[in-house]
Amino acid sequence: MAKEITNRSDDYSQWYIDIVKKANLADNSAVRGCMVIKPYGYALWENMRDQLDKMFKATGHVNAYFPLFVPKSLFEAEEKNAEGFAKECAIVTHYRLKNDPERPGKLMVDPDAKLEEELIVRPTSEAIIWNTYRDWINSYRDLPLLINQWANVVRWEMRTRLFLRTAEFLWQEGHTAHATKEEALTEAQLMQKVYAEFAEEYMAMPVVQGTKSESERFAGADETYTIEALMQDGKALQAGTSHFLGQNFAKAFEVKFLNENNQQEYVWATSWGVSTRLIGGLIMTHSDDQGLVLPPRLAPVQVVIIPIPKPDPEIDAVATQMMRDLEAQGIRVQYDTDDKKRPGFKFAEHELRGIPVRIAIGKRDLENGVVEIARRDTKEKTTHPLPDTVPYVAQLLVDIQQNLFDRALKFREEKTTSVDTFEAFQAILDQDIPGFISAHWDGTAETEQKIKELTKATIRCIPNDAPEEAGVCVYSGQPSTRRVLFAKAY
Amino acid sequence: MAKEITNRSDDYSQWYIDIVKKANLADNSAVRGCMVIKPYGYALWENMRDQLDKMFKATGHVNAYFPLFVPKSLFEAEEKNAEGFAKECAIVTHYRLKNDPERPGKLMVDPDAKLEEELIVRPTSEAIIWNTYRDWINSYRDLPLLINQWANVVRWEMRTRLFLRTAEFLWQEGHTAHATKEEALTEAQLMQKVYAEFAEEYMAMPVVQGTKSESERFAGADETYTIEALMQDGKALQAGTSHFLGQNFAKAFEVKFLNENNQQEYVWATSWGVSTRLIGGLIMTHSDDQGLVLPPRLAPVQVVIIPIPKPDPEIDAVATQMMRDLEAQGIRVQYDTDDKKRPGFKFAEHELRGIPVRIAIGKRDLENGVVEIARRDTKEKTTHPLPDTVPYVAQLLVDIQQNLFDRALKFREEKTTSVDTFEAFQAILDQDIPGFISAHWDGTAETEQKIKELTKATIRCIPNDAPEEAGVCVYSGQPSTRRVLFAKAY
Repeated sequence: MAKEITNRSDDYSQWYIDIVKKANLADNSAVRGCMVIKPYGYALWENMRDQLDKMFKATGHVNAYFPLFVPKSLFEAEEKNAEGFAKECAIVTHYRLKNDPERPGKLMVDPDAKLEEELIVRPTSEAIIWNTYRDWINSYRDLPLLINQWANVVRWEMRTRLFLRTAEFLWQEGHTAHATKEEALTEAQLMQKVYAEFAEEYMAMPVVQGTKSESERFAGADETYTIEALMQDGKALQAGTSHFLGQNFAKAFEVKFLNENNQQEYVWATSWGVSTRLIGGLIMTHSDDQGLVLPPRLAPVQVVIIPIPKPDPEIDAVATQMMRDLEAQGIRVQYDTDDKKRPGFKFAEHELRGIPVRIAIGKRDLENGVVEIARRDTKEKTTHPLPDTVPYVAQLLVDIQQNLFDRALKFREEKTTSVDTFEAFQAILDQDIPGFISAHWDGTAETEQKIKELTKATIRCIPNDAPEEAGVCVYSGQPSTRRVLFAKAY
Repeated sequence: MAKEITNRSDDYSQWYIDIVKKANLADNSAVRGCMVIKPYGYALWENMRDQLDKMFKATGHVNAYFPLFVPKSLFEAEEKNAEGFAKECAIVTHYRLKNDPERPGKLMVDPDAKLEEELIVRPTSEAIIWNTYRDWINSYRDLPLLINQWANVVRWEMRTRLFLRTAEFLWQEGHTAHATKEEALTEAQLMQKVYAEFAEEYMAMPVVQGTKSESERFAGADETYTIEALMQDGKALQAGTSHFLGQNFAKAFEVKFLNENNQQEYVWATSWGVSTRLIGGLIMTHSDDQGLVLPPRLAPVQVVIIPIPKPDPEIDAVATQMMRDLEAQGIRVQYDTDDKKRPGFKFAEHELRGIPVRIAIGKRDLENGVVEIARRDTKEKTTHPLPDTVPYVAQLLVDIQQNLFDRALKFREEKTTSVDTFEAFQAILDQDIPGFISAHWDGTAETEQKIKELTKATIRCIPNDAPEEAGVCVYSGQPSTRRVLFAKAY
């Protein structure tokens, strides 16, 4: 095998990078921290985007597009938000190049083309959007505004990692405007549920739904709803967030509406987003030492057919008919007709690419009226009667989708530990695969900060379904009324 | 009517802006030259994008995503290309803001966070992509690479106009790599044909296919294939271009491959793109003094149903069933249940939005078993038996699509004039609606430049189907072998 993947147990970080690069999902670029999303990775993103887009539209949202740049004076208007992003902004200061007199054929920034006001490349679009909403909203009849945008954003991160943290990434950002606080809260919670449904039913990635502690909230939000997933190395990944922004942006941008009683009121806001980071989560939830494992509902190719030992008219005829029949069921199929590679090489290659089902069609098998069907998740192989391959494969894709979810959920349950002492808390974090820790917390930012300093673990969320339960804080011993989830995180 | 549209004959530019703004397609933003694409405009773009994407995939292309930024040293590598875009580049020079000590709560660019190398916000992506292709291409087996990207780009234009010329715009850019010159030429020509098919069959916008003169070529191209459309004011719009780039980028970025004879060769390239500018072309091809006119195949809403005089249980029942039946035929329908607006106001509003078909359902009409069906293109109304509304409307949408194309083609044919003297040439351009001029040209850049200075008309293209024909240049009197198309242009 040409493309060796590092074992997870040897070097988890290298394993992740190997999969991203060798399965041709993405690569580093010539621009510090920015990635190139390769065609196979982009096809995966298209499937995720299209499904999310459907779900957003089904919940009443429409798409629009706002400018890439935010003038500095708008950017700084909502001070908390600005402060939160100020340290990682790419800033456009000039609008023209000119010939460099000292280097013939080369260019330099034209000092005469300095912008009067610098432009921030959007790290998020609340500022530019709320500045626009001021013109769009006059009365309660203009509300709610339920708008989403698919876009690129830039955050000048110092330590980057393909998909998980990149200087430029692709995402969607919903920005909604409402007449009442209740309606905005309902919207923010609804989008958390939409994200959870997408993560669990399409990515087969179980998530905990909860709220962030104050110090982990989005800059400028009054409440942040999050979905948190557990990766195979026992670290948490924040997979999507939905923010109740109160009237903070409405006040910063003077966005008021005339209510039904003819009074001026500030508008209530939410924003919510998921990004190409989800691809990192998908990889780390399901993949193994042979490579990528993809859930069937999102896999760009769901079934690959391989002729054994190589293409030939008889096998081609069977394969072509099978492709047609599978495609008629809406299944995405590829027939690998490359005659320069041995079957074993192809098997490994398609495993590396995470294709959920492999069908091998051999001459001898055909004489017996059977084909060999292998599933990527468990690597089980079965010899199956040719005539009913299609319904079998259709059901197998459903089973694989379910199995991936069940397996990931079982892992998370095994790796979620309730602890009541700080010694036990630290002992969990010393394990190779620590996981989630459910523990009482006294609700103060000081304790949260102290625990983070001592252990690197942060509060991932206060789970929505955490029951009221009297206890004492695992660190301070102060009283607490419910457990929260801690973990080391990406 | 609240939303008055300026008449084309009074002020064509204002008419255009009125339609863009009052039909809620787009608006200016707080960022100089950048637009906000509003939900209705974006829905139109989504339909265009989705159809183009299908056509690209059907011709073997896949999507990928490359960084927004281009390091200056890469940007300047292909000198002609760099020179072509140098004067309109947004340039990122810093990566951090900090608190402004002189303005509490405000921010300033942190002078300590200056980038070592400036980053150009992509005006087009040849440089960053060909720098990447160097790593992806080793042998003839890696070719062809047929990759497309949907992205935003920035060109710091001084005079901007919604959709037609904006500092930031959305587009797709195909970038392909080939082993032979012939294959690259075939690809560039194929994409011109794909663009022409999209323009004519979906936008109902007839186009002339041709090649650009050398001085109108894309910077860095050896040949530019274009589709040119004629707007209602008699000016041409370059609607899409496809470039044969020769080995220019391969040489600038040292992209070589090992051919079948084991020799190193430079790779051959194409690039091709269409943008949100097409929306400007769509508007100016079909719309009228009542507002937008949309071709049914791209209209976000194809049919609007209006209750007369307002919603009521009996009408609602008929409308709901009709909606369901139309949707079952794949038709996009809206039922306007707003009971605060009069029917006349709604009629005008949906005309302004360009909805191809309007169905009015009145109580009295229902007693007679009929509905009123109006088409947006001709404004004809018919009273139609209720039971077979659906097949009638389905056919009407096909007819409207065809009529829009036929009408635009007729206009273009009427407004294309063959001339043989420079006096006649100038006389055409002095008309209110000048149109295309078919004339002999001696093939020199000097003549082209002189004509442009004297008349503002440029060579739009050398049409692919222009017959060999002996003649003399309309300006210089030098011999010429075929006519070219001149026009004033956007």
